[in-house]
Amino acid sequence: MFPAVLVSRRGVAMPASPIRKLHPLLVSAQASGAKVFRLNIGQPDIKSPPELLRGYQEFCDEVLPYGPSQGIPEYIAKLIIYYARFGIELEERDIFVTTGGSEAIIFSLMAVADPGDQVIIPEPFYTNYNGFSTMAGVEIKPLTTTLEENFALPALDRLEALISPKTKAIVLCSPGNPTGAVFAREKLEGVAEIAKRHGLYLIADEVYREFVYDGEKHTSILEIPGIEKNAIVVDSISKRYSACGARVGCIVSRNQEFMDAVLRLGQARLCPPTVDQIAAARAVDTPQSYFDDVLSEYDARRHLLYRRLKNMGVGCKLPGGAFYMIARLPVKNADDFAAWLLREHRYQGTTVMIAPAEGFYATPGLGRNEARLAYVLCCEDLEKAMDSFEAALDTYRD
Amino acid sequence: MFPAVLVSRRGVAMPASPIRKLHPLLVSAQASGAKVFRLNIGQPDIKSPPELLRGYQEFCDEVLPYGPSQGIPEYIAKLIIYYARFGIELEERDIFVTTGGSEAIIFSLMAVADPGDQVIIPEPFYTNYNGFSTMAGVEIKPLTTTLEENFALPALDRLEALISPKTKAIVLCSPGNPTGAVFAREKLEGVAEIAKRHGLYLIADEVYREFVYDGEKHTSILEIPGIEKNAIVVDSISKRYSACGARVGCIVSRNQEFMDAVLRLGQARLCPPTVDQIAAARAVDTPQSYFDDVLSEYDARRHLLYRRLKNMGVGCKLPGGAFYMIARLPVKNADDFAAWLLREHRYQGTTVMIAPAEGFYATPGLGRNEARLAYVLCCEDLEKAMDSFEAALDTYRD
Repeated sequence: MFPAVLVSRRGVAMPASPIRKLHPLLVSAQASGAKVFRLNIGQPDIKSPPELLRGYQEFCDEVLPYGPSQGIPEYIAKLIIYYARFGIELEERDIFVTTGGSEAIIFSLMAVADPGDQVIIPEPFYTNYNGFSTMAGVEIKPLTTTLEENFALPALDRLEALISPKTKAIVLCSPGNPTGAVFAREKLEGVAEIAKRHGLYLIADEVYREFVYDGEKHTSILEIPGIEKNAIVVDSISKRYSACGARVGCIVSRNQEFMDAVLRLGQARLCPPTVDQIAAARAVDTPQSYFDDVLSEYDARRHLLYRRLKNMGVGCKLPGGAFYMIARLPVKNADDFAAWLLREHRYQGTTVMIAPAEGFYATPGLGRNEARLAYVLCCEDLEKAMDSFEAALDTYRD
Repeated sequence: MFPAVLVSRRGVAMPASPIRKLHPLLVSAQASGAKVFRLNIGQPDIKSPPELLRGYQEFCDEVLPYGPSQGIPEYIAKLIIYYARFGIELEERDIFVTTGGSEAIIFSLMAVADPGDQVIIPEPFYTNYNGFSTMAGVEIKPLTTTLEENFALPALDRLEALISPKTKAIVLCSPGNPTGAVFAREKLEGVAEIAKRHGLYLIADEVYREFVYDGEKHTSILEIPGIEKNAIVVDSISKRYSACGARVGCIVSRNQEFMDAVLRLGQARLCPPTVDQIAAARAVDTPQSYFDDVLSEYDARRHLLYRRLKNMGVGCKLPGGAFYMIARLPVKNADDFAAWLLREHRYQGTTVMIAPAEGFYATPGLGRNEARLAYVLCCEDLEKAMDSFEAALDTYRD
């Protein structure tokens, strides 16, 4: 007998994505002929702007070479123009292009924290922060927010109480995934002041910047003066241009020591994908009308989903941004319910796929009867999905 | 005064890529009007196959969505066909598509080793293994190979002597970057036997599989029977199809426990780029004549570079694979010489960029007077580059 070849402790500890782990049940349901309305993943059905698609179609170089580790110059130049539209003035060295927002978060965590260090994140949070933290060996200290308060940031003394000598950063996501919460400017300024006072990084995941409803304005932490050394923005084109498969994101920071560490992390992996960056550069020319249309479409869906869930007696609030809603379900365990939906529930040949919310919390036990619903289907399909969902709740017994 | 916001120890420890750190001097040299022959980076000038390029040009979906974390099914199906051509029979679950070979190495290291663990790698090795190891917190124990022996694997008792309780894997790259060495099948079998006996993973970076000269046959570790639990292959399309900017690689292993950990690592980053995978799937149809032409072109360059360097009295051996050569230079410090080439040397308006080799070694002091030369220019340019290089060696005094 030969000794066993073991997976690392880190490999064992890596969480299965609660958004993706139901995938085999989806495949079975579809194979059985069911129409599955997918509300589990933030994959919009919205068309990508033609500007972006032409970037691929018109690629006519004879060789597809490596680009610079920090991103191709033409895309960085376009990103400077993009941020300037929000009143954010950047230089080339403030931007590092990444392979999706995912890599932006991993690199940021690795550059600000060592194994055993802590970061504070309001929960529920984007579940893959768990995976990134496991990769980086970093511990998440959750700051709990609640459905009752529509997931607003709580009083900031609660945030400050979580800070320890091991704390290296506060991570925020606004508009929030999975909550849809948009943090008020004064709250962000309060968090920024705390970060500054304690010498912490403030990492803001702002990939849903364009998705803010009711005429409200999104606040970027890059707009807050005096935190140039603290502020790190994580960004991505995935949602902005409905281009999740392009895998183009970026890190923005005016802290040059941090950006230098990011450059060295990025040099190891050589470069982000070249043609996708060319397409992303083209997409910056997408006219405002595209975003106006998309926002009004999502706004209609948001109201539809909220109204239907309320009528079913499901606990939820109207979110101010992004395209997610946390729903508190009349079930004991949303994990079991989500699996049951795919395995057993059929209503006029349809069922619904949802993301159980427990994986979006770090505090054990929280979110067990909650799910994240992404309103990424057109209103007609969303109505049908809600018909099926309502029938499911009527039928389900746990 | 506010407390300083510090970069992590890991961020500080990340090495600057010795292949890329001279980039600012390149920019200055080019700005001054010099023609710089770039032998520093494995960026082939070879045309990408039209099959691959059409994958981008013919993309006509209206939405660019996330793909599955393990890669799009059509590309995985094509990879099964690709490996079958080498007599390697795979199932879908044995393949995980990554964002370039870089991600394949990072995920593999993370899944097999924890911070503080060790991996054994023959040196000189692909310098970015240093960066990946720093990210993963893993220590590299080098097994030194020498120019005198054309970087062949040494007697395997020297390998076995490096194994400690912390050792988790042996990492090989054949054909080798930066050496061009192709490891003999019997040596690979010997290494496999050691890995098996000690319960270690054997990770083989086989991205240069197609680049083996003199009619020799490449041996994949996937062909060696009895090491299904140990064997992990890291692969990439970058060199195969001259498509470094596509960022499409893969991990191949029949160890399902390991592959499950890789899947969970991959779920966190969602998916590799979608259109690039479509292009990579098309590229698998590239006819054999493309590879024959490319190999004969590289073979001519290989002989040219070897002949010119030998005539200059530079220490080197004719490599059996890949498109790199380690050159022992008549200088004290190849780092200084490489910088001087860009800063000061001009011969008929030209200069040469090389990669100092010290960063390819883990043993301190080794490789200080060596450089890696990539023969990625056409013969005409390579002759001119060597004229400039010869003039440089005549002039340089350290």
